[in-house]
This record gives sequence, C-alpha cells and structure tokens, in this order.
Amino acid sequence: MPAPLNKLDANTLAKKLATREITSEQLVRACLDWINEREADVQAWAHLAPDSALKRAQELDRGPVTGLLHGLPVGVKDLFDTADMPTTYGSSIYRSLQPVADASIVALCRAQGAVMMGKTVTTEFATFTPGKTRNPHRLTHTPGGSSSGSAAAVADHMVPLAFASQTAASVIRPAAFCGIVGYKPSFGLVNRSGVKPLSDSLDTVGFLARSVDDVALFAAAATGDRSLLQLETSLSPRIALCHTHEWPYADQDTQHAMEHAALMLAKAGHRVREMTLPESFAGLLQAQKEIMGFDLVRSLAYERLEHAIELSTGLRELLELGQQISHDQHRANLQLAYSARAAVSTAFGEYEVVLAPSAVGEAPATLTQTGDPVFGRVWTLLGLPCVHLPFYRGSSGMPVGLQVVGRPGEDKVALRVAAWLMRQLS
Amino acid sequence: MPAPLNKLDANTLAKKLATREITSEQLVRACLDWINEREADVQAWAHLAPDSALKRAQELDRGPVTGLLHGLPVGVKDLFDTADMPTTYGSSIYRSLQPVADASIVALCRAQGAVMMGKTVTTEFATFTPGKTRNPHRLTHTPGGSSSGSAAAVADHMVPLAFASQTAASVIRPAAFCGIVGYKPSFGLVNRSGVKPLSDSLDTVGFLARSVDDVALFAAAATGDRSLLQLETSLSPRIALCHTHEWPYADQDTQHAMEHAALMLAKAGHRVREMTLPESFAGLLQAQKEIMGFDLVRSLAYERLEHAIELSTGLRELLELGQQISHDQHRANLQLAYSARAAVSTAFGEYEVVLAPSAVGEAPATLTQTGDPVFGRVWTLLGLPCVHLPFYRGSSGMPVGLQVVGRPGEDKVALRVAAWLMRQLS
Repeated sequence: MPAPLNKLDANTLAKKLATREITSEQLVRACLDWINEREADVQAWAHLAPDSALKRAQELDRGPVTGLLHGLPVGVKDLFDTADMPTTYGSSIYRSLQPVADASIVALCRAQGAVMMGKTVTTEFATFTPGKTRNPHRLTHTPGGSSSGSAAAVADHMVPLAFASQTAASVIRPAAFCGIVGYKPSFGLVNRSGVKPLSDSLDTVGFLARSVDDVALFAAAATGDRSLLQLETSLSPRIALCHTHEWPYADQDTQHAMEHAALMLAKAGHRVREMTLPESFAGLLQAQKEIMGFDLVRSLAYERLEHAIELSTGLRELLELGQQISHDQHRANLQLAYSARAAVSTAFGEYEVVLAPSAVGEAPATLTQTGDPVFGRVWTLLGLPCVHLPFYRGSSGMPVGLQVVGRPGEDKVALRVAAWLMRQLS
Repeated sequence: MPAPLNKLDANTLAKKLATREITSEQLVRACLDWINEREADVQAWAHLAPDSALKRAQELDRGPVTGLLHGLPVGVKDLFDTADMPTTYGSSIYRSLQPVADASIVALCRAQGAVMMGKTVTTEFATFTPGKTRNPHRLTHTPGGSSSGSAAAVADHMVPLAFASQTAASVIRPAAFCGIVGYKPSFGLVNRSGVKPLSDSLDTVGFLARSVDDVALFAAAATGDRSLLQLETSLSPRIALCHTHEWPYADQDTQHAMEHAALMLAKAGHRVREMTLPESFAGLLQAQKEIMGFDLVRSLAYERLEHAIELSTGLRELLELGQQISHDQHRANLQLAYSARAAVSTAFGEYEVVLAPSAVGEAPATLTQTGDPVFGRVWTLLGLPCVHLPFYRGSSGMPVGLQVVGRPGEDKVALRVAAWLMRQLS
C-alpha cells in the first residue's frame, strides 16, 4: 500500500499535482482526515477551514497549473492576517477579529496556488506564553514556540508546509523540538506586511516543512525568487562548526549532536574546523533581549494600555523589563548590532556556512513553557539565514539537530549547503 | 482681542492646559469651529470625530494633568489605524474598514493626553495619487503628499499637531508646500505598528507642527524620549550647506532659498561651507525608487492581486515598474544603501547638520499630482533625521524652505540646530 498523500513531501506532491496524477482535493481530504484523527491530541490549530480549503482545491483542480504551490495545503501561523479566517495573534484580546486583508505573504502564496487549511496556534503575540499545542512526538512535551502549531502540524503530517516567524528563535526552536526543517531567511528578504509586529529590527517571516527542498520551494514561491530552487552543489562546501558564545547553555544532547556532525563530516573526508565569533559578539545575546523588550513595549502599546488585564502574567513581566530599557541603552544596543552585522562577514572568513546549536536540547517535558530561545537570539539579531536540520535524536528519543547559518544575504548558499549536509548527517 | 486658541502653538497651549488657564474643551471647540469654517475649501479630513474629541477633552479637563500632550488636538494621517475611527489608507478598497486597534504611536500619544480629532487625508496608500485636499495658502495648488491632509490641517490652524509618514518625501514635501515644520526622525526611532506598510526599509513615522519646538514636543511624547525637549544650543552649531546630487532639479525659488540661507548665516558671522556627498551617493536616488517599487509590489500584494480594479492607474503603473526589479537588482540596491549608511557619518565630517533642499520649489499649481519627492528620497534611504524649516517665500508668494539633515541617530542635535536655524533664517 502506498503512503497516504499527507505523508509525502511538498516537492513530490507538487509534481504529482502538476501532472494531474493526484488532485488537490484528494490531498486536502487526506490532510483533513489525518487532522481529524490527530487534532484532539496535538491541538495544532487555532482555526480549521475545511470547507474553504476543499472549495479552493476543487477550483485549482479545474483550472490550469500556474503556481509553484499549485494545490498544496499550507498552515498559516495565527500571527498572520487572513481575509477569510479569524486571526487572534494568540491573545484573547483578538478573540473575534476577522481581518479584511491577507498578510502579503499569504496573498503571494495563494497566487502561487497554495490552499490555506487554517490558522495554526501561536503563543501569545508570538512571545513566550504557550498556546494549547503539544509536541506530536510526545504529547507531554512542548512543541516549542512561538510557531508551535505550524511546527506540530508539519511534523505530524497534517500539512506539508506552514508559515512561521522568528523574533528570538520562533522558527528554529519549534523546528528543532518537532524534528522538522525550519528556514529563517536573511532579515529583510521576506515581506512582513500583515504579520503582527513585535520588533521591527528582528521580526522575520520563516518557513517550516519536512525537507530542505520543501522549505526552498515554499520560500521561492513566497518571495518570487526562483533561484532558491537550485539546490545542487557540485563542489564540497566550506563548512565550519560554530559553538557560539552561548555554548555553555547546550545540554548533553546538543553537545552530542555537534560531536556527531563533526564525526560524520570527518568520515566524509572533511577537515572540520571551528569558526570563532569575535569577543564583542558575546554582548549580542543581552542586546537582543533588550531590543526585543524595548520594541515590544512600543509595538504592543495599544494592547498594554487598553487591554492590560487580558495579557498573561508572563507577557506583563516581559513588558515591565522592556520598560526599564532607556533610550540611550536602546541606541547603544542598536549600535552594537549594526557593528556586528557589518563585521560578521569577516568573521565567517572562508566559510560558506557554519553549523551551530539550534536549541538547548530536546523539547522540555512541559506544556507551561516553550523552551529557551537562547540559540536563536544572536543569529536573528545578526539577520543571517538559518536552516534547522533534524538529523539526530536525544537521550530520550526526541528530535535534536543543528542549524546551518549562512553569510548575510546568502540564503541560496545556506539552503544549498543545508540540503547537502542533510544527506551527509542523516 | 487675543488670538483664537486654534492659532496658538502646541507648547503655548500645553502650558495653558497644564495650568488650567484654558480647558481642552475650549481648545477643541476652537479647532472644530475653524475646521467647520474652512473644511469645504481645504478638505483636509477623511473623517472628523467632533463628538469623541469633545468627550475626550471633557474627560481630560476633569482628570489630572499627566501627559506631555494633555488636552492637545491631533490629526491622524489616514494611513494609521484607529480603534475608534474608520481607516481607509486613501483607497476605496478600505472604504468601510474599522480597525480594532490603534496604531502604537496613536495609543502612545493618547496615553500622553492627546485628543484625536479625526483622520487626515492621505494619498492612495501614501503613494502619488492625490486625495481631495488643497493647499490652504492657495486652493488651486497641491498641499503635497502623501501626508496631504495632516500638512494642510496644521498649516491652516485646524490642529496644532498631526501625524505624518515618509517613504520617499511624504513628511518633508507637504511641510514645505504648506509652510510648516515637518520632522522625519532617524529610521527605526519611532514604532510603526499599525501604520500600513509600503516599504520596510524606508517607511518612517513623522510629525508635523508649526514650530520646531512643537514637533519636538510631539516626538518626545510619542517616543517617550524626553531628552528631545532640550532644544537650547549654547555654542554656535557646525552647519554646512549640502546642494546634493539632485541639485539640478531645484528651481529658482529653492536656489534662492539656499542663497538666502547662506547669506543669513554669513551675516550672523558663520563661515558657510559645503558638505559634498561621495560620488557613489549619486546612485542612491535610483536605488531608493527601485527599493520602494520592489517593496510596494510585495507590501500591497493582497490589494494588487485581489482588488486590482480599485487601484488608480498611477499606482498600477508604479507597481508594474516595481515588478521589473529583479531580486539580484534589489539585493544590489540594498547593498548600496547599507554601504552609504555606513559611510554617511564620515561624509558629514565635522558638521553637526547640513542644510539641503526640501522640494523642487513652491507647491505646483495642480491638484492632480502632489509634486516631485526628489529631495526626500536619498535622505530617507540613508535613514537620517530631517527637519523642514519654512523660512522663505517663492516668487509667487507660496512657502519655500530647506531641510536640516542630521547625522545618523542624532535627532536631538538635528532638532536643536533646527530651532537655532529657524531663529537665524526667519
């Protein structure tokens, strides 16, 4: 018996849809059936839209194949506005919000033939207070955040693709905890209009799927940059490990993943080297926290001033911390960030990418928090392209992996090397 | 007979309100009376909210004085979301949109005691297709755009303060054409959440008023940075003229304004020098246009894909131009911009600010376009603080002036020197 359609990857499905070997309706039904079976456990969805998804699939089946995502089901993080589905930003303040427009990236993917299946659970305003979603690998563990529902839905084969966004580590951490591929593009590459802002200097739209080829397909469709589809590498890529200044936070599972990666690369004939970040980069972790806090106080001004009672205790504490950052401190933090952004290319030296930790370790066995974003913060502040690779298992059998981090704006290279590495490390 | 309250500047009014010499209700009524008299001619307002403004004024009159803007009437550009007033973004697509939240900057100013009087006319999505507003100095002339209604309302004494935003020249040009002070802060200084995005790399929230002290008060309240209020200059500021690479676009009136400024500074004992921008900056004008076009295609993806028929011909042409910019070209443009941003501080040398053209000349005698934004584009792309000073009259008697441009992030200095210059040049 062949694998059910919902288990197949996006590129395979796209080819079958383009040749009319399968219909979008069949695929959407397979996904909906599986969601129906699993949602009571996983709780990935803030809103499911089976009727409009089926209607759209049928329309696409009747029409010509034009877009890169023709007929493919997509999950939309509930931080992204949708004209045909409610949008809560993970907060009860917006429990009855029906936006009048799609976020740009949603509109662009619809135009490429994507079928929007529903809204996936986000943490409260994409910060740290969890939603209802559970880790599909083990329901007592967090799926990570803030793109909790998107990561769980993709990992559980409910949809092949789902939108994410990252301000600290909200693409990479849930991808790591759920054992899928997450791609956070270079800062500024993907349009953010219609995505609820947290921090103008940090917010980045990202993509979740079950393979590097699939996040690349998704990103190519969303940005219109088809060169992202060319993932062949002819030469042996120039890769270093980067343990980062945050290495002391890594637990044994992440340490083992780094050792395993070094071993596999050595076996494949690579001389494995270390890329050491400048000493001044040690301050970036704290700077990222403070920039995020400072911006959050302002981005959520309306909610904080008019609906304080509906904010979680955790978020209120985060806002109080943010209010303690002075304008002078904020300017100094931004200055540090700009200097580091200007210097990071030099730090990379001859290397095309580095391999770095994605998370502290396995998904913590809790549903009351989403895990530490410590290994995402600095790369987000630096605006570098990051791709999480789920190639390893931790001591209790849960997914672990590493992220490929590329040079500024070199998303194509990062994706190419990520695809190559996934083959070497698996 | 004393001047009617609506004629007074914001700082004077703030003092009278704080000491209860006048009530906010009296002030709001004076503004509403004047709007009532003039609106049929000027047409500055997309939506006027007399009832809620009076109600809020009465509340503030009954309560304690806490905020910097206590009781002051403010006009809100119709590109900014408001929870209690419709918001159209200058497009019929949104003719019936009632946002559920305030833009952050609106919420922050409300918390400082501002009374929102209504929504001021913006051009279509803050691009170049005009709204109904006329120049209050001469009704057959454009008020400039995109902050057309805000500039006209402030110039005509309908309100002392109004919000603006700039992607090309939409703060500085309408300020110039209407003869008021416009302040475009450094990129990243003012939160943009809830302001309809055009270009993530360019969009900047700004402030309109009738004096430098008033834009500084407004910005201090909006950002929470009270150091912007300290406008005293003890020493003689270090100022250069900067004719810019776009100087050939300047007509005689703007040429005369530059000559007049040089003369006045020389009279006051200043050695007047020129700051010459690097040759490589000559490409920034075209780069700004292309970045704006590229981003616009994506930011307005939903409108372009789902409501194309409701876009103006002008905007559709702009979008078609934007669609011709390749990803490689866009990356090259951003790279040029980043290099220039990194180099601009050096270009300033010893100077604290430069004086540069704000617009080609007087407001053109037309209502079918809003004038050329050529003198705003490069400074916007560089992210520098700009303050328009309305100290001059053109050959047909309409307002002309120059903009003070400060070093990156040196908004305090730019405002301080602008206040000093306004005294020297007037």
